[in-house]
Amino acid sequence: MRTAFYISDGTALTSETFGHAILSLFPVEFQHKTFPFIDEAEKAHRAVDEINLAYAENGERPLIFHTFVDPSIKKIITQSEGVCYDFLDHYVAPVQAELGVAAQPKTNRTHGLNQDYNFRIDAINYTLENDDGVTTRNYAEADIILVGASRTGKTPTCIYLALQYGIKAANYPLTEEDMDNLELPYDLKMHRHKLFGLTIDVDRLQSIREARRAGSRYSSLEQCQFEINEIEGLYRREAIPFLNSTHASVEELAAKIMTAARLKRHRY
Amino acid sequence: MRTAFYISDGTALTSETFGHAILSLFPVEFQHKTFPFIDEAEKAHRAVDEINLAYAENGERPLIFHTFVDPSIKKIITQSEGVCYDFLDHYVAPVQAELGVAAQPKTNRTHGLNQDYNFRIDAINYTLENDDGVTTRNYAEADIILVGASRTGKTPTCIYLALQYGIKAANYPLTEEDMDNLELPYDLKMHRHKLFGLTIDVDRLQSIREARRAGSRYSSLEQCQFEINEIEGLYRREAIPFLNSTHASVEELAAKIMTAARLKRHRY
Repeated sequence: MRTAFYISDGTALTSETFGHAILSLFPVEFQHKTFPFIDEAEKAHRAVDEINLAYAENGERPLIFHTFVDPSIKKIITQSEGVCYDFLDHYVAPVQAELGVAAQPKTNRTHGLNQDYNFRIDAINYTLENDDGVTTRNYAEADIILVGASRTGKTPTCIYLALQYGIKAANYPLTEEDMDNLELPYDLKMHRHKLFGLTIDVDRLQSIREARRAGSRYSSLEQCQFEINEIEGLYRREAIPFLNSTHASVEELAAKIMTAARLKRHRY
Repeated sequence: MRTAFYISDGTALTSETFGHAILSLFPVEFQHKTFPFIDEAEKAHRAVDEINLAYAENGERPLIFHTFVDPSIKKIITQSEGVCYDFLDHYVAPVQAELGVAAQPKTNRTHGLNQDYNFRIDAINYTLENDDGVTTRNYAEADIILVGASRTGKTPTCIYLALQYGIKAANYPLTEEDMDNLELPYDLKMHRHKLFGLTIDVDRLQSIREARRAGSRYSSLEQCQFEINEIEGLYRREAIPFLNSTHASVEELAAKIMTAARLKRHRY
């Protein structure tokens, strides 16, 4: 299998995103290796050794996706046997011309600390402290409150909203006890403009629950069907916007919720 | 202020990463707008209206960072008044030539569901269930166990490790009760090869704690100093690798821990 390397003098998150977006277009399997914080010549030489070894072992030239601030380190990498792609190469000059301002490269500017960083940490803390309906008394502070049956993806989606977008995302599970003549719980009614529902296909819900509590009433097809029917009915009656999480990743759900609920991100 | 738009027929996460990495090189402030899921001509025309409006209001051409699978939608966007940068433009052809395989563009391949997706969700669930030392009985399953004083960044770092890299990351706080003659707690001793420490500058710790519990012993400079001294001593005595979180973002901490602990990511 050919190897793809993601190399940077920072976290290499940008190199990974860049390389992965390109490679995902091709029906080819790769072995992936990430080398972050390659910020000294010696580290760069060790990376080159690994690149050249991968080539020697495999016979196909490794693909190298890299972003460097220091041109001397970059030069060591580009002299390896790998095929190098620098994602800044083609864009810095035209953007510079358009802005009429010179680029000022600085390590770790992309994924380092900045003024919005504390906001994201606060959002993560808020989201963890208001997960799974453990408390409803901080909902005035919430940017959004996800509701839905158990195991529909509320928690991971909230965490992603906090981490990626700096959104304070609480979540509240609609559980069995609420199901007869399902009404919006009192604590949610006061914040209904912040509510956003998740639903899921019944057979998918059943298989997720079965993996956690095999053979239980909770994971039976009848119970899953009943809860989803009741909850989707509630969403419709109460005009709560909702999404189906069955075929969506947390990234997709979060991006869709940001748009649908007109949330403003607190990051950049 | 000039506007930067991030537009895609998927989540637009790749467009955001791409555009943000480039713009972070310039000492210029932008207003940022993200339009994900622009997958129909009508939505693309509405996006163009917003781009052209931003130009009319501001007098400077907006910068558009975009990735599209469907060329007809892309064409609508590139006919706007914005200056368009397509990050795939310069890379797909050379990678295609190197691989000898034609690209097969497909919407949402980058941030959609794939075989590793469940692994990431499992990692998030594991991390939440093993946060803050609430239980130590699942440590056999952990990929890593972060330790450190209260408020040194353990929880956000664990969550990022789970979400971004699919790592099962538990964390255990070294609290006041453990501080006299600080020893490694029994439950951690058995898993010492998985331990990784966090520390932080004392004045930074004091200000974070003060924001949470003003005027308390917990947030006093003396207490913070005492805990950090004891804990760093423990790390040294027990040869636990550790990092200082004071000037590092969760992205940086996570990337450094991945490298230092030689963890393998479970994503791609």
